[in-house]
Amino acid sequence: MNEHVYKKVELTGSSPNSMEEAVSNAIERASQTLRNLRWFEVTETRGHIENGRIDHWQVTVRVGFTLDE
Amino acid sequence: MNEHVYKKVELTGSSPNSMEEAVSNAIERASQTLRNLRWFEVTETRGHIENGRIDHWQVTVRVGFTLDE
Amino acid sequence: MNEHVYKKVELTGSSPNSMEEAVSNAIERASQTLRNLRWFEVTETRGHIENGRIDHWQVTVRVGFTLDE
Amino acid sequence: MNEHVYKKVELTGSSPNSMEEAVSNAIERASQTLRNLRWFEVTETRGHIENGRIDHWQVTVRVGFTLDE
Amino acid sequence: MNEHVYKKVELTGSSPNSMEEAVSNAIERASQTLRNLRWFEVTETRGHIENGRIDHWQVTVRVGFTLDE
Amino acid sequence: MNEHVYKKVELTGSSPNSMEEAVSNAIERASQTLRNLRWFEVTETRGHIENGRIDHWQVTVRVGFTLDE
Amino acid sequence: MNEHVYKKVELTGSSPNSMEEAVSNAIERASQTLRNLRWFEVTETRGHIENGRIDHWQVTVRVGFTLDE
Amino acid sequence: MNEHVYKKVELTGSSPNSMEEAVSNAIERASQTLRNLRWFEVTETRGHIENGRIDHWQVTVRVGFTLDE
Amino acid sequence: MNEHVYKKVELTGSSPNSMEEAVSNAIERASQTLRNLRWFEVTETRGHIENGRIDHWQVTVRVGFTLDE
Amino acid sequence: MNEHVYKKVELTGSSPNSMEEAVSNAIERASQTLRNLRWFEVTETRGHIENGRIDHWQVTVRVGFTLDE
Amino acid sequence: MNEHVYKKVELTGSSPNSMEEAVSNAIERASQTLRNLRWFEVTETRGHIENGRIDHWQVTVRVGFTLDE
Amino acid sequence: MNEHVYKKVELTGSSPNSMEEAVSNAIERASQTLRNLRWFEVTETRGHIENGRIDHWQVTVRVGFTLDE
Repeated sequence: MNEHVYKKVELTGSSPNSMEEAVSNAIERASQTLRNLRWFEVTETRGHIENGRIDHWQVTVRVGFTLDE
Repeated sequence: MNEHVYKKVELTGSSPNSMEEAVSNAIERASQTLRNLRWFEVTETRGHIENGRIDHWQVTVRVGFTLDE
Repeated sequence: MNEHVYKKVELTGSSPNSMEEAVSNAIERASQTLRNLRWFEVTETRGHIENGRIDHWQVTVRVGFTLDE
Repeated sequence: MNEHVYKKVELTGSSPNSMEEAVSNAIERASQTLRNLRWFEVTETRGHIENGRIDHWQVTVRVGFTLDE
Repeated sequence: MNEHVYKKVELTGSSPNSMEEAVSNAIERASQTLRNLRWFEVTETRGHIENGRIDHWQVTVRVGFTLDE
Repeated sequence: MNEHVYKKVELTGSSPNSMEEAVSNAIERASQTLRNLRWFEVTETRGHIENGRIDHWQVTVRVGFTLDE
Repeated sequence: MNEHVYKKVELTGSSPNSMEEAVSNAIERASQTLRNLRWFEVTETRGHIENGRIDHWQVTVRVGFTLDE
Repeated sequence: MNEHVYKKVELTGSSPNSMEEAVSNAIERASQTLRNLRWFEVTETRGHIENGRIDHWQVTVRVGFTLDE
Repeated sequence: MNEHVYKKVELTGSSPNSMEEAVSNAIERASQTLRNLRWFEVTETRGHIENGRIDHWQVTVRVGFTLDE
Repeated sequence: MNEHVYKKVELTGSSPNSMEEAVSNAIERASQTLRNLRWFEVTETRGHIENGRIDHWQVTVRVGFTLDE
Repeated sequence: MNEHVYKKVELTGSSPNSMEEAVSNAIERASQTLRNLRWFEVTETRGHIENGRIDHWQVTVRVGFTLDE
Repeated sequence: MNEHVYKKVELTGSSPNSMEEAVSNAIERASQTLRNLRWFEVTETRGHIENGRIDHWQVTVRVGFTLDE
């Protein structure tokens, strides 16, 4: 692993159900255009409220991937 | 949205089951006395342990709401 | 409670399913060797990705326990 | 000054024009209901974008005021 | 404890004598209007100087209390 | 809004006149190549000095935009 | 001093009287089992409230000690 | 530029009008006694309130300058 | 107060007895060479241990003073 | 320099030998696809261990470059 | 990797020569008593000065290792 | 050591070769005018890039020294 260079991009995913699903949505969207995704780090957890209840979660992640040689 | 003034209050909700439920409990309690809740930001996630297992989660959020005109 | 001294240890638990389960795995592993676990604080949430999907969550917690008199 | 107790509240003001006006709007709104405002600290500066231009600034401040004796 | 919702307020107390007394003054002032205070966290320690000596300490705390059911 | 995935990019804009203009320059440059810019967060404010006066401001922002479906 | 390796452990001490006594209690408890304690750093100051007054202080320190050769 | 050593000093400037003017006042005062000022970084933005309005801004900057050979 | 420029210097004071005395020693030493000291902010609290007991406290403060006109 | 807009990207480089080489590998990889790289800031230093020894360093940098006019 | 629980310990290593050697000394000392060391994160870099020159570097790392099943 | 008062100054040193040399250059420059330098803490590591390669490192340190009695 020690000769790779990684790039990180910062994404925010949303879900009405859970933090995990919000992250999962972000990762799966990223994987449509980026190959070799390796890891993520959660940097912020927020959400929107409608009528006194949580409407959806918004979780921000930094996602690391290998730059192709 | 650009003429509003928002206030944030900091709340800690608890749940034996999940982080999401702890936040939800805090939001729903706040909505009993505050109108126009709009968003929240998670600032701290803690929990209590009993007999070597998680007894309940305690999640702190800052909750923003519109000040009535 | 006010005469106790507590120690904190830092652990990272993993789970393919959820953040809560990753924390729970760390707490239960710690309780095999440490008595009197009292509380935890989440300090980092990361995860590994395989084939464009979350493979497992890795959540780091500081766990506090009472030092035996 | 040394016998006072102060409370801080956290507010977000908005303005289409400048950071200073966003803070000023928050302070003036707070002064409608709180007496003895003394100082503020900027904690976050954000903004919304419409059609590729800044639509309005959103600046969050902690505002300190003397609790009445 | 696991069904409660807590609110935190941020207060700054002052004392010419010590950090502890500054915090104590803030807590006791808060207890005049808020029931069920439970814990505090020190977030900032400052002070004013007059004639080359400390005139008074100013310590900021976040104070948590149970929201009445 | 709750099904979107957002990406954030980090930009530094410059201006000899004001912080607001520095941010505005960054946003407008970004809008030449990125559609659907939604919000920004100021993360750093710096500047260069020439002959004992501010020559220009350099303000760094994270800019969020919707990833096209 | 330059060939030593140090380890840090994180402890929370309590006292009804002062921050200093809370730290002192943690250090003295640690010295029962660890030799060669050298320095500490305060990382968190909290406390519990009973009946509107401070019941006890809880101060967390990282304590460094020399690993025996 | 790569053989220089820089020193940073921390200054707080004030202005009734704007953040920019508060920084500018600090820089210009520093340039009366320090040569070769090169850059600044804003580290804190605060202000004082009188009669429910902003009386003046107080902005803290770290200012870097080349140490003379 | 709004036309002044302040400078901050960072000092560490020591005391075998208390945090307050450590800060006080730093302030009084600074006042031998700097006029117009106005306020301080505690930025770090550490200490040295000898024979399993606290030997002395080391508290770091940023001290602000008015630059003479 | 004051009319430019800069973009920052976050990269992690690896090296079995040194932190400097890890950064250098990241910069040189980035320069294959990005023109006008100007500066970097180290944001994280980590490493992997094999058989009780450092196997390779992993250093994360934010790299700034001029956006072409 | 996803069923493991990791523990982190915090160590400070020293070297008269380089940051890398200071970290290496800490890791190798730890490997005498801990099996399955996996990664480290640098958290603090300091050093001591004698006669106007660097006498030795002191680098603090958090070291993660697998808890034996 | 417990009766001393220390002052910290913040310096940035540069080197084309390594982080260590950049710090060393800052320390040695400071020792030309300040006696009794005791320790340093690295607070920021940056660098400039020319033609896709690192041109020089810029490392910022806080340097502590004993104030003469």
